[in-house]
Amino acid sequence: MLDQLNQHRTIRKYSNETIAPELLNQLLETTCRTSNTGNMQVYSIVVTTDSTIKEQLSPAHFNQPMVKQAPVVLTFCADFNRFSQWCEQRKAEPGYDNFQSFIAAAIDASIAAQTFCIAAESVGLGICYLGTTTYNAKEIIDVLKLPKLVVPITTITVGYPEITPEQTDRLPLDAVVHRETYTDFTPTLIDQLYAEKENSQFYKDFVAENNKETLAQVFTDIRYSKKNNEFFSEKFLEVLKEQGFLK
Amino acid sequence: MLDQLNQHRTIRKYSNETIAPELLNQLLETTCRTSNTGNMQVYSIVVTTDSTIKEQLSPAHFNQPMVKQAPVVLTFCADFNRFSQWCEQRKAEPGYDNFQSFIAAAIDASIAAQTFCIAAESVGLGICYLGTTTYNAKEIIDVLKLPKLVVPITTITVGYPEITPEQTDRLPLDAVVHRETYTDFTPTLIDQLYAEKENSQFYKDFVAENNKETLAQVFTDIRYSKKNNEFFSEKFLEVLKEQGFLK
Repeated sequence: MLDQLNQHRTIRKYSNETIAPELLNQLLETTCRTSNTGNMQVYSIVVTTDSTIKEQLSPAHFNQPMVKQAPVVLTFCADFNRFSQWCEQRKAEPGYDNFQSFIAAAIDASIAAQTFCIAAESVGLGICYLGTTTYNAKEIIDVLKLPKLVVPITTITVGYPEITPEQTDRLPLDAVVHRETYTDFTPTLIDQLYAEKENSQFYKDFVAENNKETLAQVFTDIRYSKKNNEFFSEKFLEVLKEQGFLK
Repeated sequence: MLDQLNQHRTIRKYSNETIAPELLNQLLETTCRTSNTGNMQVYSIVVTTDSTIKEQLSPAHFNQPMVKQAPVVLTFCADFNRFSQWCEQRKAEPGYDNFQSFIAAAIDASIAAQTFCIAAESVGLGICYLGTTTYNAKEIIDVLKLPKLVVPITTITVGYPEITPEQTDRLPLDAVVHRETYTDFTPTLIDQLYAEKENSQFYKDFVAENNKETLAQVFTDIRYSKKNNEFFSEKFLEVLKEQGFLK
């Protein structure tokens, strides 16, 4: 099992093989055994296989080819809709139209997504997370017809791998793990933690291809710019208001 | 592997056996192989084993006994601090003091937490998620000395199981899974989906013990009340502002 987790790769190209519905259901059943907030199960999974709907979802994911190419697209949502309807039908006043409930449900959705990924990888499938989900949540809500108190958190494309790429690098454990309490970084430590990454030929080429001076600039100027982050922050906060999670 | 995931139980009572540091490191290394946003690894894991610090964390988790009893407490945080410091040292202007960056980092933290849980369970350890983390993030920030752009998202207590409880129930798959697009619920469907849960003797006793008329009322009036949710929403939004993720 640790071996499987250690071998994780993101799979962006899928073979033409479809996923048997029984297998997909089995993976979804397994996913639903996962930890969740107070056993309320405040998440939902929209399973999309129809090519017309995948095509409609595609622009929301900036037309990344995985959406149309993968046999199955799963949208994991924070969902207090079902639970609140149940409360209303049971003489109970639901109080989940607020930010704390959104966060609990978003954590539920993320945990379920990762359980699905690990389950899928264990049967030979490959997955790719689409971080575009919270950028264009509004458009996804329209396509998937998500009601109030439902917000898409992350999307997974899944299928049998056509190409299994090299593993990507990771920072040394000390970049992520802090002992007992948080130890803030010194400039020297930052240099040490990023040295291997920055000295690799792969990233040197990557920086050159992007016409930048440093690897960090590829992130700040191109991939995750302040301007875009601020634009999509406003947009997502607006979605939380419209869906009823923020006053 | 599916078997393991299907057998998941939350473990709240741990034996006196400690976790070997080498094993813990191996699990953390495995965790760091997990999917994350743009390979920025914008999360951190604070590993607490010191009994004094666990005691300080305890009130933030409403003194749930797992915090002091578990050999290891892991606090998973959304973390753009390290990445932003790296940018600043590399002539790049970080733009991660916003809500979209917080959400990406919170998803990273949640995914990492779940990968850790599955890795830990595969070697015979038991875990418990503490949803209290976002309620009392402020107090946890103080104890763990979390700098700006670091916010605790979830906490896991981990140790060898002393008692392995019965599995808890789950709703039928149709409560969580929607096909192609979202199909909203009808009162009849809600009744069907909750029938097994509501008819079980376990929950009938649970409702009676709590002096309520319906199971939903135990959630809305006691466990996750509107008043508490609203109080902790304001508190957590305040934390996001203080930590620099919200204007």
